[in-house]
Amino acid sequence: MPFPFNPVIRAGIHGKVKAMIPFKRLLSGKAGLSPGSLVHVGDRKVDRVRIHVIDYDKDSVKEREAESPSDCEEYKTSRSITWIDVKGLHGVEIIQGFGERFGLHPLVLEDILNTGQRPKTEEFEKYLLVICKMLSYEQETGEVGMEQVSIVLAPSFVITFQEKEGDVFDPVRDRIRKGRGRIRKMGEDYLVYALLDAVVDNYFVLLDKVGTSLEDLEEEIMGNPRPDILDRTHVLKRELILMRRSIWPMREVLSNLQREESSLMTEHTGLFLRDAYEHTIQVIETVETFNDMASGLMDYHMSAVNNRMNEVMKVLTIVATIFIPLTFIAGIYGMNFEHMPELAWAWAYPAVVGVMGVLAGGMIVWFKHNRFF
Amino acid sequence: MPFPFNPVIRAGIHGKVKAMIPFKRLLSGKAGLSPGSLVHVGDRKVDRVRIHVIDYDKDSVKEREAESPSDCEEYKTSRSITWIDVKGLHGVEIIQGFGERFGLHPLVLEDILNTGQRPKTEEFEKYLLVICKMLSYEQETGEVGMEQVSIVLAPSFVITFQEKEGDVFDPVRDRIRKGRGRIRKMGEDYLVYALLDAVVDNYFVLLDKVGTSLEDLEEEIMGNPRPDILDRTHVLKRELILMRRSIWPMREVLSNLQREESSLMTEHTGLFLRDAYEHTIQVIETVETFNDMASGLMDYHMSAVNNRMNEVMKVLTIVATIFIPLTFIAGIYGMNFEHMPELAWAWAYPAVVGVMGVLAGGMIVWFKHNRFF
Amino acid sequence: MPFPFNPVIRAGIHGKVKAMIPFKRLLSGKAGLSPGSLVHVGDRKVDRVRIHVIDYDKDSVKEREAESPSDCEEYKTSRSITWIDVKGLHGVEIIQGFGERFGLHPLVLEDILNTGQRPKTEEFEKYLLVICKMLSYEQETGEVGMEQVSIVLAPSFVITFQEKEGDVFDPVRDRIRKGRGRIRKMGEDYLVYALLDAVVDNYFVLLDKVGTSLEDLEEEIMGNPRPDILDRTHVLKRELILMRRSIWPMREVLSNLQREESSLMTEHTGLFLRDAYEHTIQVIETVETFNDMASGLMDYHMSAVNNRMNEVMKVLTIVATIFIPLTFIAGIYGMNFEHMPELAWAWAYPAVVGVMGVLAGGMIVWFKHNRFF
Amino acid sequence: MPFPFNPVIRAGIHGKVKAMIPFKRLLSGKAGLSPGSLVHVGDRKVDRVRIHVIDYDKDSVKEREAESPSDCEEYKTSRSITWIDVKGLHGVEIIQGFGERFGLHPLVLEDILNTGQRPKTEEFEKYLLVICKMLSYEQETGEVGMEQVSIVLAPSFVITFQEKEGDVFDPVRDRIRKGRGRIRKMGEDYLVYALLDAVVDNYFVLLDKVGTSLEDLEEEIMGNPRPDILDRTHVLKRELILMRRSIWPMREVLSNLQREESSLMTEHTGLFLRDAYEHTIQVIETVETFNDMASGLMDYHMSAVNNRMNEVMKVLTIVATIFIPLTFIAGIYGMNFEHMPELAWAWAYPAVVGVMGVLAGGMIVWFKHNRFF
Amino acid sequence: MPFPFNPVIRAGIHGKVKAMIPFKRLLSGKAGLSPGSLVHVGDRKVDRVRIHVIDYDKDSVKEREAESPSDCEEYKTSRSITWIDVKGLHGVEIIQGFGERFGLHPLVLEDILNTGQRPKTEEFEKYLLVICKMLSYEQETGEVGMEQVSIVLAPSFVITFQEKEGDVFDPVRDRIRKGRGRIRKMGEDYLVYALLDAVVDNYFVLLDKVGTSLEDLEEEIMGNPRPDILDRTHVLKRELILMRRSIWPMREVLSNLQREESSLMTEHTGLFLRDAYEHTIQVIETVETFNDMASGLMDYHMSAVNNRMNEVMKVLTIVATIFIPLTFIAGIYGMNFEHMPELAWAWAYPAVVGVMGVLAGGMIVWFKHNRFF
Repeated sequence: MPFPFNPVIRAGIHGKVKAMIPFKRLLSGKAGLSPGSLVHVGDRKVDRVRIHVIDYDKDSVKEREAESPSDCEEYKTSRSITWIDVKGLHGVEIIQGFGERFGLHPLVLEDILNTGQRPKTEEFEKYLLVICKMLSYEQETGEVGMEQVSIVLAPSFVITFQEKEGDVFDPVRDRIRKGRGRIRKMGEDYLVYALLDAVVDNYFVLLDKVGTSLEDLEEEIMGNPRPDILDRTHVLKRELILMRRSIWPMREVLSNLQREESSLMTEHTGLFLRDAYEHTIQVIETVETFNDMASGLMDYHMSAVNNRMNEVMKVLTIVATIFIPLTFIAGIYGMNFEHMPELAWAWAYPAVVGVMGVLAGGMIVWFKHNRFF
Repeated sequence: MPFPFNPVIRAGIHGKVKAMIPFKRLLSGKAGLSPGSLVHVGDRKVDRVRIHVIDYDKDSVKEREAESPSDCEEYKTSRSITWIDVKGLHGVEIIQGFGERFGLHPLVLEDILNTGQRPKTEEFEKYLLVICKMLSYEQETGEVGMEQVSIVLAPSFVITFQEKEGDVFDPVRDRIRKGRGRIRKMGEDYLVYALLDAVVDNYFVLLDKVGTSLEDLEEEIMGNPRPDILDRTHVLKRELILMRRSIWPMREVLSNLQREESSLMTEHTGLFLRDAYEHTIQVIETVETFNDMASGLMDYHMSAVNNRMNEVMKVLTIVATIFIPLTFIAGIYGMNFEHMPELAWAWAYPAVVGVMGVLAGGMIVWFKHNRFF
Repeated sequence: MPFPFNPVIRAGIHGKVKAMIPFKRLLSGKAGLSPGSLVHVGDRKVDRVRIHVIDYDKDSVKEREAESPSDCEEYKTSRSITWIDVKGLHGVEIIQGFGERFGLHPLVLEDILNTGQRPKTEEFEKYLLVICKMLSYEQETGEVGMEQVSIVLAPSFVITFQEKEGDVFDPVRDRIRKGRGRIRKMGEDYLVYALLDAVVDNYFVLLDKVGTSLEDLEEEIMGNPRPDILDRTHVLKRELILMRRSIWPMREVLSNLQREESSLMTEHTGLFLRDAYEHTIQVIETVETFNDMASGLMDYHMSAVNNRMNEVMKVLTIVATIFIPLTFIAGIYGMNFEHMPELAWAWAYPAVVGVMGVLAGGMIVWFKHNRFF
Repeated sequence: MPFPFNPVIRAGIHGKVKAMIPFKRLLSGKAGLSPGSLVHVGDRKVDRVRIHVIDYDKDSVKEREAESPSDCEEYKTSRSITWIDVKGLHGVEIIQGFGERFGLHPLVLEDILNTGQRPKTEEFEKYLLVICKMLSYEQETGEVGMEQVSIVLAPSFVITFQEKEGDVFDPVRDRIRKGRGRIRKMGEDYLVYALLDAVVDNYFVLLDKVGTSLEDLEEEIMGNPRPDILDRTHVLKRELILMRRSIWPMREVLSNLQREESSLMTEHTGLFLRDAYEHTIQVIETVETFNDMASGLMDYHMSAVNNRMNEVMKVLTIVATIFIPLTFIAGIYGMNFEHMPELAWAWAYPAVVGVMGVLAGGMIVWFKHNRFF
Repeated sequence: MPFPFNPVIRAGIHGKVKAMIPFKRLLSGKAGLSPGSLVHVGDRKVDRVRIHVIDYDKDSVKEREAESPSDCEEYKTSRSITWIDVKGLHGVEIIQGFGERFGLHPLVLEDILNTGQRPKTEEFEKYLLVICKMLSYEQETGEVGMEQVSIVLAPSFVITFQEKEGDVFDPVRDRIRKGRGRIRKMGEDYLVYALLDAVVDNYFVLLDKVGTSLEDLEEEIMGNPRPDILDRTHVLKRELILMRRSIWPMREVLSNLQREESSLMTEHTGLFLRDAYEHTIQVIETVETFNDMASGLMDYHMSAVNNRMNEVMKVLTIVATIFIPLTFIAGIYGMNFEHMPELAWAWAYPAVVGVMGVLAGGMIVWFKHNRFF
C-alpha cells in the first residue's frame, strides 16, 4: 500500500509503532534552571558542529568552512554580506562564542539553544532575532523532520543556527552562488526574507503530501471503508494539530517583520515580506481547511462503517427472523409425544411445508413493504 | 436520478469516481523558485492565448482581437476606456510583454501567473491589482469550473487575465455593446465593479444549485434514508468548504476596494461597490448557513439510519425472543429418552402447545407494556 | 397531535411534505442583470398594489387609499406626518413612480424590489432606507410568513413597502387612530421606531411558539423517545437557522439607527431605539439559546433512543444467551444414534432437565452479578 | 436518592414531571403594547405589595413599613441613606406612584414591571437603573427561584423592586442593623454594591450545588452508567444554559458600573465593584467550565453505556457463535432418514460429542486469539 | 499498569475512587460575608504558620525563621532585599498582623486568605499584589497539588503567602543562597519574576506528564482499545479543563506586569517578564492542544471500540446466517410425520447434506462478494 507519507502515518498502517513526533516537542524542558543559563535542550542530532560561511556581494561569492566563532569575527564589520550558517546546537561553548564575539544577549543564546521555542521575532538594539520551525520532508525516507532555525540579522551579517545538517535552504544557496534572481543585488534583510520564504515554501510541499493523503483516504472510504482508515485518519489529524502549532505563530513572525520599523528591514524587502506573509496566511488557511476535512473524514468514515454494519445486520435480521419461526414449527413436529394426531395424517407433511413457505413468503413481502431491504 | 449538479457530486452518485476539484488547487505550488520568477503554475487550459480588446466611450464601441501586447500599447494612453481581456496564462512571454509595456511589477506578473493565489487586492502607484476566483456553472455539462481572474485597473485601461475562454462576463460585454445601463457613461473603475459584480452574481447561481441539492437530500432523508445519501452529503459539504475558501477572501477584496483612498476609485462607484460588498456578505452568510445545514443533514441522516436500523433490530429481537424459548420447549420433547412419562399422556401435546401459546402471548403483552413496539 | 406550529413543522409531523420556506429565500436571484435595473425578485403575492395613506398630526388623523404615486405627492412637503404604506411589489412602475416623485436613488428602488435582501439601513442625503424581515405567525392557519419590509424615512413622510397585505402593524395604526401613547405627539422618526418595534415584538411571538415546541419535544423525549421526534426537532432546528439569518442583521440595523448622526433621528427617539435594540439583542440571544437547546435535544433524543434500543437488545441477549445452550443440550438428546446409553437410564430425563435449570439459574446469577439487568 | 437540587432536576429523577423554569422566562411578552405602557409582565407571586424602608446613617438605623409611595417621599431629600425595598410588582399604580414622586422615566417603570428583562444598567440624569436576576436556592424545598431585581440609585436613596418576598439580601440588612463592616459609614453607592455583591455571592451557592451534582453524576457513570443519568445530565445542562443567560450580562452590568463616570459612583466604591466584577468573571468561567463538563459527561455517559452494551453483546455473540453450529450438528443426527449409516456405529455418539467439544474449544481459542474477550 | 500520574487519574485506573480535585476548588465560598471580612477560605493544610525570611543583597545572604509579623518589621525599610515567605493561611491574626504592619488594604488580605481566587494582579499605591496558582507534581506520591500563592511586591521587600510547606521555589532559594545567576545582583522585581518563572516552569513539568499519558493512551487505543481507556481519557480531559482554568489567567497576570507602568517594575526585569509571558503562552497553547488531542482520543477510542464491536458482530452474523437455515433444514427432516416419503429414499441423507454444503458455500461466496469479511 503506497502510503509512505511519514513515520507516524506509516506507523498507523504498518503496525502499532509509537508515533514519532512526540508531544514533548511542544514543550521547552528547562524547568528549574536559572533564566539565562546556557543549556542545549533537545536531542543531539549531529556529531560535530559545522560552521558554513558564504560571503557575497554583487560581484563575488566566497564560501568556506569556519572552525570557530573567532574565525568568523572578520565578517562582523565587512562591507560584503555574510551568511554564517551554524549546524548543530550541542556545542554550547561555540554558541557562547558567537554570543560574545557578535554581542548577543544571553536570553537570545538561551532561546537559540532551547529547541522547544515557539516561533517568534524579537528586536534588539543592534540586531533582530527570528525563530521559526523548519518542517522538511525527505523524499527518500518519507520522513518528516521538525527542526528549529534561529536567524540573527545584523547590519552586515546573518547568522543562522540549525539543529543538524540538511535543510531547505539549498535553493537559496544556489541562487547566491549562481547570482540568479535579485538576491546578490540586495541586502542582508533580503537574505533573511529568502530564508523565511524557503521555510514557508516547504510547508506547501508538506501540505501537498497531506492533501494527497486526504484524497486517498476519502477515495478509500467511498470505495471500501476499512477499519484501518480510522487509524490513518487519526494520525493525519494529529499530525495536522502539530503542524498548526508550528505554523500558526509564523503569521505573527512575518507580520511583525513587515511592520518592524527597524532600520534593519528596508522598505523594498517589506514588499517581499508581504508576499511571504500572504503565503503563510494561505498555509494556515489550508491547514485549517485540511483539519476540517480530516474531522469530516473521521465522521464520514464512522458513518460509512456504520452503514456497512447496518447492511450486515439487516442480512442477519432477515435470515434469522424468517427461519427462527420456521425452525420452531419443525421443532413442534419433532416432538415425540405419542398422541399427536397430525403426525399420522397423509397430507400433514406437505401442509406444514406449505404453511412454512407461506409464512416465509409473507415475511419477505412484509419486509419489502417496510423497506427493510 | 436527476442530480447532475457537479462532477464531484455526480461522482458520489454514479460511482466511485475521484473528486474533481483536487485539494491541491488550494495551494500555490512554487516551492523552491526564486521569488519574482515568472512561471505559469496551473493546468494549461487553452491552446492559444487570445487577447480580446473592447474600447469604448459614451458614444462608440470598438472590438478587436489583438495579436500581442505591443498591439495594445496604443490604448495605454487613449482617452477612451479600454478593456483588454487576456485568455490563457501559459504564454509567459505574453504576460511579460504586458508587464513591460504597461509597467507592471514583477511580483504582480508572478501573482497573475500563479493560479493558486488567494483572492486579494493590492494597490501600486499607478495601478490596482485585484485577484478573484470565478466559480462558473456550465449548464450543459453540469460542471463547476474554478478559474482565477486577475484584474489590473489603471487610469485609462483595464486588463483582465483569465485561465481560459468562457467566462461569466458576457452580460457585461453585452451591456457595453448595447449601451445598456450606465456602464458606457462611467469610468474604468465602474467597469471593474461590473466585472466583480458579475463574479459575485455567479456565486448566487452556484449557491442556488447547492440549495436545491440540500433540499432534495433533506426530502430524501425524511422519506427514505438510503445509505448513498451519506456520500452525496459528504461531497456537498466538502464542496462548500472549497467554496468558502474561494469566496471568503472576496469580502476583504471588496471592503478594501471600497475603502481605497486611491484616485482610481471614484466615490460614485464606491456606492455600487458597497452594494457588491453586501452581496458578498450575503453569499458568505449563505455558504455558512448551507454548511451548518449540511452538517445538520449528516447528523440527521445518521440518526434516521440508526432509527431505521433500530426498527429492524426490534423486529429481530421480538421474533427471536418469542421463538427461542418456544423452540427450546419443543426441543425438550424432541429428546429421545426412554423414560419421559409426559410423552405418553394423551393431553400432553395440546397442553404443551397451550403453554407455548400462553408464553408467547405473555411476552407480547410484556413487550407492549414496555413499549418495545 | 396538536403541533400546528408552522407549515414546515407540520410537514415533519403529518407526513413527508416538502419544507415550505425554501432555502432559496436566502438568496437574491438577480444574477446577470445590470445593477440598478428595476425588476421585482420574489413571488407575486397580491393581485393589485394598494397604497394606503395615513396623514396625522397631534390633533387629527386622515386615512385614505391612494391610486398612484402622484396621488401622494402632496404629502411630500406637508407639515403633518404622512405614512404611505405600499402593499405589493410587482407593480414596478408604481415603485418607479415613487422613486421619481420622492427622489429615491435607483439602487434604493432595486433594493426595495429585490425581496432577497439582507436587513440593512442606508443613509442618503435626504432620506434614510431601512430594510427588515417581518416574520408573522397567523393564528388561524398556523403558518409562518416571511415578508420583506422596506421603510423610507424623510423629513415629512414615511413610506413602507410590503410584499402583500396583512402585517404586524395594526397595533401601530390603532395607536395613531385612537391617539394612544405618544405616537401622535412625536415625529416621523418615532413612527419608524414604532414600526420596527412592532416587527421585533412579533419575533417574540414566534419565539414563544418555538419555545413551547421545544418544551413539548423535551417532555416527549423524557416520556417516550419516539423516532418521529427526530424529524420534528430537525425541522425546528432548521427553522431556527433561517430565523437567525433574518433576525441577526436587525441588531446592526437598530444599532446603526441609534448611532445615526442624521438629523432625521431625534435624540428623544434614540432612547426608544435603544430599547428596541435591547429587545433585538434579547431575541438574538434567545434564538441562540433555542438553537443550543434544539441541538441538545437532538443529542438527547438520539441517546434516549439508543438507551431504549440497548434495553431491547439486552432482553434479546439474555433470552438468547440462556436458551441457546439449553436448546443445544436438548438437541444432543434428540439425536437418533443407536448407541446412546444415557437414553435408557431412568433418571436421565429429570437429570438433564435439572442440569438445564442449574445452567439457566447460573447464567441469571452471573448476569445479575455483572449488572446486565 | 439524595438529589433534591432543584425542581427541574428532581423531575429528571423522580419521574417525567415537566421542567419548571419554562423557556418562556427568557422572553419579554409584551408584543403589541404601546412602548412605555405600564403593564406587569410576569406571574403574580405575592398577595400584597409590601414597602420596607431602612433609613440609616453612621449613627442610627430606622426601619418601618410604608403604606404607599407618598409615605416614602420624605426620604427623597433626607441626608441619611434610605433603602426603599418594594416587594411585589403587580401593583402597577404603586410603581407608577414611585415613578411620579421620584421622577423616574416611563421606560424605567416599564423595565421594572417587565420581568423578562435582560440584566442591564442605564444611566439617567439624576439616577441610575440596574436590573439583575437573583437566583436563589431555598434549602428547605430544594427549589431554585429566578427573580428580577431592579435597583434605582439616586443621590440620597436606593429603591429596589423585587417580584416577591424572600431574597438574598438578609446579610446586607443584618450588616446595616448591627453596624458591621463599613456599610454604615459609606454612601448609597456602597449599598448598591452590597446588594449586587449579595446577588453574585448567591450564584456561588448555586454553582456549588451544580458542582456537587456534576461530581455525583461523574461518580455514578464511573461506577454504574445507568440510563437515567442521561435525563439528569440533560436537565443539568439545560439548567446551566438558563443560568448562563441570566449571569452572562451581569459582567457587562458590573463593568459598566465600574467605568461609570457618573457622580453617583464614588471612586472608593469602584474598588469594591472591581472585586464584585472579578467574582462575576469567576462565576461565568465556572458556568462555562461546568457546561463543558456537563457536555463531557453526556459524551462520557453515552460512551460508557455503549461500552457496557458492547460487553453484553459480546457475551451473546460468543455464546451464539459457539452453540449455533453445535446445535446444527445435533440437528443433523436428529433427522429421521432411514439410511444414515453413522447412526448405527457404536462410537458415533462419543465421536460426534468429541467433535463438538473440539469445535467449541477451537472457537474459544480463536476468540481469545482475536481478543474478543 | 504504570500510570501513577495523579490521584484523579489513578482513580480512573485502580478503581472507582472519587476524583480528588473537587470542582468546588473553582469557587470562592464566601457567600453572605461582609466584603473585607478576614476569614480563611480553604482547607487547613499545615499545623503551624511558619514565616521564613531570606534577606540578601549583592554580597550577603541571611536566613532565619520569624516568629510573628512584628519580627519582620525591621525589613520593611532595610536597604537589602527581603523575601518573607509565609506558609499557612489559617492563622488569620498573623495575616492581619502583616496587613497592619506592612500597610496592606483589607481587600488584599481578604484575597490572600480566600484560596478560591482567580489569578490576578492588582496595583496599589505602594505595593503590587500578584495571585497565582502553583500546580506541583510530587514525584514520590504521584500527586498533583494545587496551591494558591499570593505575592506582595513593595520597594524593599517581597512577601509570599502559601497554603502549606513544600513548594516549587527551592531552585530560586538555591540561586539566592549560592549567588548563581543574576538574582543577587538585581532588585525585588527580579525576585518576583524568578518566583513566577518557577511557577510557570512547573506547569511544563505537569504538561510533560500529561503528554506522556496522552501518548500512552493513544498507543493503547491503537493496540487494544480496552474500555477502561475511556475512564482514563475522561479523567485526563477533566484534569486539563481544571488546569486551563488555573493557567489561562496567568497570561493576563504576566501581560499586566509587563505593561505595568509602576516604578516597582524596572525595564530590565520587563525583558525577563516578556520571556515568562511567552512561556505562559506556550503553556496555554499546549494545554489547548492537549485538550484537542484528548477530545480526539475520546472520539478515536469510541470509534476503535465500535470498529472492534463491528468485527465481533460480523462473526456472529456470518455464523448465524449460515447455520440458522441449515438447522432449519435439519429440523424439517427431524419431524416425526409418518408420511414423509423422502425419509425412506436411500440417497436422501447424502443429498440433504450436499444441499446444505452447497447452501453454506453459496452464502460464503455471497458474503465474500459483498465484502462482508
